[in-house]
Amino acid sequence: MTYQTLKLDLDDRLLWVRLNRPDQMNAFTVEMADELEATFRYASLDEAIRVVVVTGEGRAFCAGMDLSVPGNVFGLDETLDPTLAELDAGFEESGLRDGVRDTGGRVTLAIHDCRKPVIAAINGAAVGVGATMTLAMDFRMASTAARIGFVFNKIGIVPEACSTWFLPRLVGLQQALEWCYTGDILKPEACLQAGLLRSVHDPETLLAEVEAFARRLITHRSPAAIAMTRHMMRRNPALPDPRQAHLIESLAMLHASQGDGKEGVRAFLEKRDPEFSAPASRLPGFAEAWLG
Amino acid sequence: MTYQTLKLDLDDRLLWVRLNRPDQMNAFTVEMADELEATFRYASLDEAIRVVVVTGEGRAFCAGMDLSVPGNVFGLDETLDPTLAELDAGFEESGLRDGVRDTGGRVTLAIHDCRKPVIAAINGAAVGVGATMTLAMDFRMASTAARIGFVFNKIGIVPEACSTWFLPRLVGLQQALEWCYTGDILKPEACLQAGLLRSVHDPETLLAEVEAFARRLITHRSPAAIAMTRHMMRRNPALPDPRQAHLIESLAMLHASQGDGKEGVRAFLEKRDPEFSAPASRLPGFAEAWLG
Amino acid sequence: MTYQTLKLDLDDRLLWVRLNRPDQMNAFTVEMADELEATFRYASLDEAIRVVVVTGEGRAFCAGMDLSVPGNVFGLDETLDPTLAELDAGFEESGLRDGVRDTGGRVTLAIHDCRKPVIAAINGAAVGVGATMTLAMDFRMASTAARIGFVFNKIGIVPEACSTWFLPRLVGLQQALEWCYTGDILKPEACLQAGLLRSVHDPETLLAEVEAFARRLITHRSPAAIAMTRHMMRRNPALPDPRQAHLIESLAMLHASQGDGKEGVRAFLEKRDPEFSAPASRLPGFAEAWLG
Repeated sequence: MTYQTLKLDLDDRLLWVRLNRPDQMNAFTVEMADELEATFRYASLDEAIRVVVVTGEGRAFCAGMDLSVPGNVFGLDETLDPTLAELDAGFEESGLRDGVRDTGGRVTLAIHDCRKPVIAAINGAAVGVGATMTLAMDFRMASTAARIGFVFNKIGIVPEACSTWFLPRLVGLQQALEWCYTGDILKPEACLQAGLLRSVHDPETLLAEVEAFARRLITHRSPAAIAMTRHMMRRNPALPDPRQAHLIESLAMLHASQGDGKEGVRAFLEKRDPEFSAPASRLPGFAEAWLG
Repeated sequence: MTYQTLKLDLDDRLLWVRLNRPDQMNAFTVEMADELEATFRYASLDEAIRVVVVTGEGRAFCAGMDLSVPGNVFGLDETLDPTLAELDAGFEESGLRDGVRDTGGRVTLAIHDCRKPVIAAINGAAVGVGATMTLAMDFRMASTAARIGFVFNKIGIVPEACSTWFLPRLVGLQQALEWCYTGDILKPEACLQAGLLRSVHDPETLLAEVEAFARRLITHRSPAAIAMTRHMMRRNPALPDPRQAHLIESLAMLHASQGDGKEGVRAFLEKRDPEFSAPASRLPGFAEAWLG
Repeated sequence: MTYQTLKLDLDDRLLWVRLNRPDQMNAFTVEMADELEATFRYASLDEAIRVVVVTGEGRAFCAGMDLSVPGNVFGLDETLDPTLAELDAGFEESGLRDGVRDTGGRVTLAIHDCRKPVIAAINGAAVGVGATMTLAMDFRMASTAARIGFVFNKIGIVPEACSTWFLPRLVGLQQALEWCYTGDILKPEACLQAGLLRSVHDPETLLAEVEAFARRLITHRSPAAIAMTRHMMRRNPALPDPRQAHLIESLAMLHASQGDGKEGVRAFLEKRDPEFSAPASRLPGFAEAWLG
């Protein structure tokens, strides 16, 4: 994997994804969107990768869409104007995909679909799509130097990257509306208080803290159990009735108990570390059908 | 607009709505419900209005349904007893509308449907429907003199005004159930802590703080972008899949980027304030269809 | 009601349910699941019971599934392997019920369906299903001696008991994922801070505090109004549109205003305590149809 806008490093099951346009404060481009989407689609199924961390090269995390390249602005073809139904029907059609579909949303859907935990290590400015791309990740850990802004309304546009789905769930509607209407640049303490960030760290310790946390999600963990947990926690709360979650959980537990659960219980009773083997890339049939 | 129960003042794009029965602590009546509903339906489409603030004349915000007028009690016709399906089918039928549909809910649906941000300036007692009517607003700012109570269960009735939809989203199920089961009169500090209130202020500064905040949602903001942001943030989290939010956001961004977004990016690059012109009252066709 | 794994005491409308395997730290068995499910189904409709409290005999609340009994482990028949659609279609079919359906989920669905408030008095270790069974309850009050752990991923299995539906709603997705991925044993202060717990108490005062709180949900409260409040708050936020909550609330208010609401308003105006009589077990027709 050699990319123009990303620097990738796989270090013992932990994939570091570094946004790599430091001279442009890692400003987002259509090329970066394509490379991020491909990276998450790939990481989801490669068993050598267990956790993905996204951070920025240089001082910034991602300063938003690169407005200096006219064609990059929003990545949208203004001559296309489908209805909602037409866009839905032609979801993967190349013209609509490249000319209408929001590039940030393509990235966050790939993050949401991933079978591995994803951590944002927000090392500096995270503005516009630089902020919204982190909302679909499992955890947001920030440096005290981070500055976060949902600045869309200030330039006459709207929140994207599925942020209208994720942000109110993370911080509540009242806080989400204030951040979006005002476009204020937020300090990490306020974002921690609001529940957006998991934790805040000194700039020099951020990456070490992120790695230490990531390793806890890798060591002696079953990739299959983590993948099922991730997707049940993301999808089931949107179901209208807990009975539907119960059905999915029952089948997930049935299969886990025949798989890595056997080893897990045995290791627990024998007071030793477990050795898990069930892969995230080939889940039981019901789960593959459910994930679509 | 001359109303019996409200005092309306439009001050430079900010509409002040004052509940105006101060001698009855602004107790709620069917007439007040009708006037509030009409006000929000009107404010939604009048381009001269950009933000709506609701507050109470005198000491109270709204002390709940006016129980002294027997006909006002709940505004319901006890001779009608439709099923849920019949009420749904006859939603706008006048008999069901006036005789069965909860008056507080008629108001909060008009607030929810509004294309402008709505702020509650809770200056004093906000009890029963006086509390629940604020839940559909975008922001709740309160005076230290405010007292809030979801007192329905104490008098043998149930929470209304769509509070069973809004309150658990704002403060979580555990807190919502406690406030409703007990009917406790709550102090503003506890409500701030729980996430119900945006902020708490001295009584003498509340309205100035509300106005200063409201102006930040007006000045150099695109009415169309604000309207789309408001409705995407309210509707999209209820969708089962972020993919559906992505479709709506993509079309919203496509149109915004052809409209006020062009001016917004230009102004940003030229380091000047933008001049937006896209109206909230005539959104792109896909958005008008989506809003219904 | 005489049970093997539970100790039940009805004390003036308050049902105490004590998990009663203290020598096994109240470890969960299929028998306990059956007895809990039966208890909640029964308590839901018995008018002598107004609030249910669940606590543990001895030092623990519930130390999770009893792993020492091989047949108990997950209570699942590994020879059955239905699809999600087959399990859904055969939801109450005895083979699927006993051989596939997660036992914890059977208990939490009975708690969710109950028409009475349910309080967890978490007196000690609450691990695995001991933690997840409390998520469907209305309130979680804990002793400072409580230790809570969602430890499933550590033994190769997945969260259950509808926890993938309840936990993200209670504490947000970011916190829910961390607790589940890591399986950390949590102290009560962290759980209070995250919104999981209502309150934390000294071990010696926990049960008295729980009882005092429970009595406030009983005294001068309408069983019918409490039951409708409980289910509207649980079900309505999952509806896509507040208009749907408005329809249900309107009918609930219409009926309450003809029932206990009449007495409630009269007592309020006469400045005396109300005497309510509408039962939770026979709600108005629309409500019985809605509850299913």
